Amino acid sequence: MTNPSSVGIVTAQKAVFDQPIALSSGVTLPRYELMYETYGTLNENRSNAILICHALSGHHHVAGRYEETDKNPGWWDNMIGPGKPIDTNRFFVIGLNNLGGCHGSTGPSSIDPETGTPYGSRFPLVLVRDWVETQARLADMLGIHQFAAVIGGSLGGMQALRWTITYPQRVRHALVIASAPKLTAQNIAFNDVARQAILTDPDFHGGDFYAHNTVPRRGLRLARMLGHITYLSDDGMGEKFGRLLRSGEYRYSYEVEFEIESYLRYQGDKFSDMFDANTYLLMTKALDYFDPARHYGGNLAVALKDALAKFLVISFTSDWRFAPERSREIVKALLDARKHVSYAEIESAHGHDAFLMEDAPYHNIMRAYMNRVAAEVSA
Amino acid sequence: MTNPSSVGIVTAQKAVFDQPIALSSGVTLPRYELMYETYGTLNENRSNAILICHALSGHHHVAGRYEETDKNPGWWDNMIGPGKPIDTNRFFVIGLNNLGGCHGSTGPSSIDPETGTPYGSRFPLVLVRDWVETQARLADMLGIHQFAAVIGGSLGGMQALRWTITYPQRVRHALVIASAPKLTAQNIAFNDVARQAILTDPDFHGGDFYAHNTVPRRGLRLARMLGHITYLSDDGMGEKFGRLLRSGEYRYSYEVEFEIESYLRYQGDKFSDMFDANTYLLMTKALDYFDPARHYGGNLAVALKDALAKFLVISFTSDWRFAPERSREIVKALLDARKHVSYAEIESAHGHDAFLMEDAPYHNIMRAYMNRVAAEVSA
Repeated sequence: MTNPSSVGIVTAQKAVFDQPIALSSGVTLPRYELMYETYGTLNENRSNAILICHALSGHHHVAGRYEETDKNPGWWDNMIGPGKPIDTNRFFVIGLNNLGGCHGSTGPSSIDPETGTPYGSRFPLVLVRDWVETQARLADMLGIHQFAAVIGGSLGGMQALRWTITYPQRVRHALVIASAPKLTAQNIAFNDVARQAILTDPDFHGGDFYAHNTVPRRGLRLARMLGHITYLSDDGMGEKFGRLLRSGEYRYSYEVEFEIESYLRYQGDKFSDMFDANTYLLMTKALDYFDPARHYGGNLAVALKDALAKFLVISFTSDWRFAPERSREIVKALLDARKHVSYAEIESAHGHDAFLMEDAPYHNIMRAYMNRVAAEVSA
Repeated sequence: MTNPSSVGIVTAQKAVFDQPIALSSGVTLPRYELMYETYGTLNENRSNAILICHALSGHHHVAGRYEETDKNPGWWDNMIGPGKPIDTNRFFVIGLNNLGGCHGSTGPSSIDPETGTPYGSRFPLVLVRDWVETQARLADMLGIHQFAAVIGGSLGGMQALRWTITYPQRVRHALVIASAPKLTAQNIAFNDVARQAILTDPDFHGGDFYAHNTVPRRGLRLARMLGHITYLSDDGMGEKFGRLLRSGEYRYSYEVEFEIESYLRYQGDKFSDMFDANTYLLMTKALDYFDPARHYGGNLAVALKDALAKFLVISFTSDWRFAPERSREIVKALLDARKHVSYAEIESAHGHDAFLMEDAPYHNIMRAYMNRVAAEVSA
């Protein structure tokens, strides 16, 4: 039975780019591929395209299912589909796996055509502005000059923000959700502990673990466990797990004692089985380096001065990884730069993860805003 | 030149206990030793003794120096000494290294007399109430029936609180600083990531790394880096490090890029050179298990109903590891149980670490309270 609010069965596509790209790190990649998916139909004047930018562990499979029997749909299926806030009856929605990813786009685990072996440690670091560049080339390939909206949460929100600075003419709306204008020292510190866990895992082999037929599972598991704590709120964790014991009694050992330990270890195990450690490292570095105001004397309003987009900024009250204060910094800079900006601070106990979850006030705001975006498209 | 506000040169002492102790975990230790130090003079009626309980990585060297040339004094030297808030001209102050520690008291790295090798994985878990029991035996040995005050910060505050429940007659005042009545799910989660870092380090060898002539340095380093983030506040880290770069420019590598990374890695390296991994594990488990209300239907006021001590509870505004809310839970329970309690919430940017730092409002409150304690002693 088909679900009328789902985009249904989808197929991933591969875009091949034979033009070299000069990355911010100084390295040039001679060629690369990007995996992407699209939902909905591009209208005649190509004005209804939406780009969805993913966060640390995301990818191009944003909505729908590959097969009827798939247990899980794409990662933002609750937001995107016929009649959903990002309505595929009206918009042509594109999701992609960023350069450096591990879901089919060219990344550290891809085969380097020059050597016939995985890039591993030879894969360059990729910055948010590099992603914007590759996304623009994908848009060119699809014949899209201007996006109706670029939308992202967390690291994805940073890409949406960067789009409005690099390509002001190509973005009509930017939706920057649960994001920040740059990381704090504490954010960087958590990222560095996660990286050190991977980098010092004896199975990492300097990034070339593929050749050793192993993966730095321990390090990646720890990185994910730690990350997961920062995605949830203290209160949310308290409500869900509290001090609940696995067996009802203290057993006085280092085995799982509290349910929260079981949950975290499970999340870590699952993630370390499916995600590439080099991609994880690369994504955390992209987060650390993001600081669009840096070349404008630290003044974000000046960095945004040429932006033409209208903005929707959304934060969640219990998000302490990218707290509402950080979204308000973006809003203040936009106001200082005299841009159109709407801001919503959503009451939520779900911490940073709230941006991925179905929540009526959040989805209502997204829906209302996207209705405005759609009205402009048809006008 | 001697510093008139220092306790001066001190010497650690060893107390040997040949009576077995039955621990909460069900294991009995046939004998054990505790390292301790004392400052000041026990008065004739033995009524001026103060017990200082240490936190996760603390020990018996609380004040003074072992040699004139020692770079660093004991860990709470700013609080304890002649004329200091805990005034050694008036009090006889005892610091000890808890059972399970790695600073000379019997712990996992000690030689098990039965085997002639370090206990390692054979060393039992030790709970807060076990520490209180061993501390009471140390008091017996020193001829102290009742403490003028039991004082501790963080995990040390939990011991002070436990003292008032287990031995109501033996504590006149309990000073519970930057502590909590029990850990939250988030606290436990951070501890578990730290433990998993150690437990999954290939050099851990199930806790018996001593026999392999190695230490799980990587795991302990990660645990300390992570711990350190939770001891500092987001704002404090921001003020001290912000996004300061090591070399002034992005270098696009996994080497130290931001100063905060350099600081954290240094802290991790230093700690992993000097601390025992099994002790670290044991201390985090004592934190997790602490929950004095557990045997009283979860009602801390009922747990405290027989306490005879007067209480001073102190918290610090930017402490998110043991937030002021957690101290207020203790205060509320004490009020519900109709106990004498004073409470101070100190404005500070230093996070959990604030309890160890010199700060005028904090030290003034400690001094004023300890003056009251001293007045009772001389009365």
